[in-house]
Amino acid sequence: MSRSLDALFRPRSIAVIGASRHPGKIGYTILKNIIDYGYRGRVYPVNPKATEILGLKAYPSVLDIPGPVDMAVVAVPAPIVQKVAEEAGKKGVKVLVVITSGFAETGNVEAEKRLVETARRYGMRILGPNIFGVAYTPIRLNATFGPGNLREGNIAFITQSGALGIALMGWTVMEELGLSAVVSMGNMADIDVVEVSEYLADDPHTRVITIYLEGLKPGTGRRFIEAMRRVTAKKPVIVIKAGRSRRGAAAAASHTGSLAGSDNVYSAAFKQTGILRAYTVEEMFDWARAFASQPLPRGENTIIITNGGGVGVLATDAAEEHGVKLLTPSKELRDKLSQTMPWFGSPRNPVDLTGQAVEENYEKALTVAFESGEVDNIILLYCRTAILDPVSLAETIVEVAGRYEDSGKPLLVSMIGGEDVYRAMNLLNRHSIPAYPSPERAVAALSAMLRYRSYREKIAGRAATS
Amino acid sequence: MSRSLDALFRPRSIAVIGASRHPGKIGYTILKNIIDYGYRGRVYPVNPKATEILGLKAYPSVLDIPGPVDMAVVAVPAPIVQKVAEEAGKKGVKVLVVITSGFAETGNVEAEKRLVETARRYGMRILGPNIFGVAYTPIRLNATFGPGNLREGNIAFITQSGALGIALMGWTVMEELGLSAVVSMGNMADIDVVEVSEYLADDPHTRVITIYLEGLKPGTGRRFIEAMRRVTAKKPVIVIKAGRSRRGAAAAASHTGSLAGSDNVYSAAFKQTGILRAYTVEEMFDWARAFASQPLPRGENTIIITNGGGVGVLATDAAEEHGVKLLTPSKELRDKLSQTMPWFGSPRNPVDLTGQAVEENYEKALTVAFESGEVDNIILLYCRTAILDPVSLAETIVEVAGRYEDSGKPLLVSMIGGEDVYRAMNLLNRHSIPAYPSPERAVAALSAMLRYRSYREKIAGRAATS
Repeated sequence: MSRSLDALFRPRSIAVIGASRHPGKIGYTILKNIIDYGYRGRVYPVNPKATEILGLKAYPSVLDIPGPVDMAVVAVPAPIVQKVAEEAGKKGVKVLVVITSGFAETGNVEAEKRLVETARRYGMRILGPNIFGVAYTPIRLNATFGPGNLREGNIAFITQSGALGIALMGWTVMEELGLSAVVSMGNMADIDVVEVSEYLADDPHTRVITIYLEGLKPGTGRRFIEAMRRVTAKKPVIVIKAGRSRRGAAAAASHTGSLAGSDNVYSAAFKQTGILRAYTVEEMFDWARAFASQPLPRGENTIIITNGGGVGVLATDAAEEHGVKLLTPSKELRDKLSQTMPWFGSPRNPVDLTGQAVEENYEKALTVAFESGEVDNIILLYCRTAILDPVSLAETIVEVAGRYEDSGKPLLVSMIGGEDVYRAMNLLNRHSIPAYPSPERAVAALSAMLRYRSYREKIAGRAATS
Repeated sequence: MSRSLDALFRPRSIAVIGASRHPGKIGYTILKNIIDYGYRGRVYPVNPKATEILGLKAYPSVLDIPGPVDMAVVAVPAPIVQKVAEEAGKKGVKVLVVITSGFAETGNVEAEKRLVETARRYGMRILGPNIFGVAYTPIRLNATFGPGNLREGNIAFITQSGALGIALMGWTVMEELGLSAVVSMGNMADIDVVEVSEYLADDPHTRVITIYLEGLKPGTGRRFIEAMRRVTAKKPVIVIKAGRSRRGAAAAASHTGSLAGSDNVYSAAFKQTGILRAYTVEEMFDWARAFASQPLPRGENTIIITNGGGVGVLATDAAEEHGVKLLTPSKELRDKLSQTMPWFGSPRNPVDLTGQAVEENYEKALTVAFESGEVDNIILLYCRTAILDPVSLAETIVEVAGRYEDSGKPLLVSMIGGEDVYRAMNLLNRHSIPAYPSPERAVAALSAMLRYRSYREKIAGRAATS
């Protein structure tokens, strides 16, 4: 595993340069997040006008800190960043996380260049500038000024947009999406999306990498392709490439100053590298939710289990549209399924347990699906009925799925209904069973898994024959 | 306005035949919903084994009821339905809402035919059988066994699927979607989707009609096209046609027994009639949310106002994809917009107020957009930031939008973030400003409005030249 970014993801000590005593200030929020989220290394506020901030001794300069400093988060005004970087270099800081904006993105290209040169001279790396920070939940590191209460999990989120990134951090908390890492890329003066992806490809706590991308730096296309091939050979990467329309590209260029480039070029690059391209943020995280908790499909045969005919039809339509192959059950399997439902149910696929279904019907049908050699993937649907409490059903699903943890079969759920259905889905998501508010979104997520499976098989075939 | 279905939507009195004293029974839930939701007409429980149910005097037979009965909800076992229908006919009931299942959908075609003949003989209409009921919120009528707490609003929802329909009723409550009517169609032995749509086309409380459709009865295609043309000339109709895939069609056929027919035929019919076709349930209600509260666009020029560059780019991409034309603001408009933002913002479209934006910036920019003759439609985006509380922003938006209620400009909002953003969006939706959890969904909803506008212009042109 590459150790190059260890100081960024596993710092043993952090200085917050520009730490503030005033709630509302970025230098306050970052320090507070680091402390409150439970980081266990040393934390040093740096502020020449304070002796103590949030209960920690403050230092006038990073040079005054007694112990070694791995990471320095920089939240001082732009004109002072250069001076602070020099001091950090002298101190032996390994990585600068430069929150401060007002560099290349506002035309101040010269200052950014100087900053990079300074860092290089001292062997320091730079994340940013113009970012909201970095978080890595396995060591309880939240060095961002975003929400303080990130959920731990297996999804890494890399973002080239700050505002959207912070907003999505809050959204993931509400959506029960567990994250391993959040990395704000900003101007990518030094560390870029590719290097972070390569590092996370070897991170044992990351199962899937999601990237909000506006554009690569000119001339880095070949490196992107070579590196991302290595990454996707290890784990799935989902990218939302913003600025794919002509006008969107122009907006992106004015936003981050990155050259968006022709969308065709990106499409080709994603295809060559096995990157899964999402078209909306919802889609990206829908797919990531499935990858983060479910095994990769071992085959294509998918079964849909439902208590509502209509929702089964919608899922069937979506399956055809997304290239998800629905199993045609054998006579033997149909007979077994028939025993799990009322006489007027359907053991064909979609398997319709009918509106009369209670926990037991789902439990039995799910068990048959897990046990059957014909079934590779399971989509379970539920429409709120008066006779089946959704939270109770969710508990049943968790219990059965737990029994078949090693089955190698992905299970994706969709439930439709009101508040209690929402609670039931949260329960499922907390127990690592991906649940979606519409059948189409569950099917689309499985489809992404199947596409990634095909890509992996293809490259495995290539490796075998070469 | 057609009065043919007045007894279904505006009954002056209702008998619940098969009313039950036992919670959990369908005949209990329906009666309870009718009472609790606040229906103001007479309600008569009918049950030969009870003298009083839920505080109301019960009658052994509908024939024993002293006053006239407009609607009879039938929730007795299938073998008794025929007898009950005869009695209702004799009583002079105008419409039978037959909840009971076990007719054509389970092969019992003969019993259904007999039921229809009986009804015809007495001049009664039938909704169903095999349905969950009917609701019409303007008179506080909830004669369903679905959720009791429907939100009042302007969206009519017609569904051929029972389980999905009930589940979606609950979902609309949570999603702050206000409904005028919910109609469960079931087997459509008599009253069908077309007749209900025509009635609701003239309903002053309905602004948009949504339909979950699995299939029309054979031979009703021409009537569908002619009637729906009249409906869409009055108000937008959004249809989700389930069973559009080969396998989905087969599932639909086994589910409701309707002939799904080739999807191409439906596509052509929808196009000819100006029906907006949604591909997911989320989409259907996303669009309906906009139609229900916003004026129809008077032109195509759309402006995007945002505090996040990234989310602005995503919206721009979506606009190009969905054919939403983004305005290129004049120098004069750019100058005005510039005064609403920090110096490093962008007055181009998307209008970027930057992450520094507070209520005042949004208020000013929104006012400029409402006042400008160049702007026809407004999409407002917000990414959660530490300095701008989403609920406070929502209140600002409600206030400004209220001032420009008569501007004729649709305003659609998208907000990204955690719990408080969710609360802010609920507040907006309650105040009739459609709010969506992703920018793409807001853009797609506006796109549906623009497509409907084009259709209306086209038919108006045709009418003018013919």
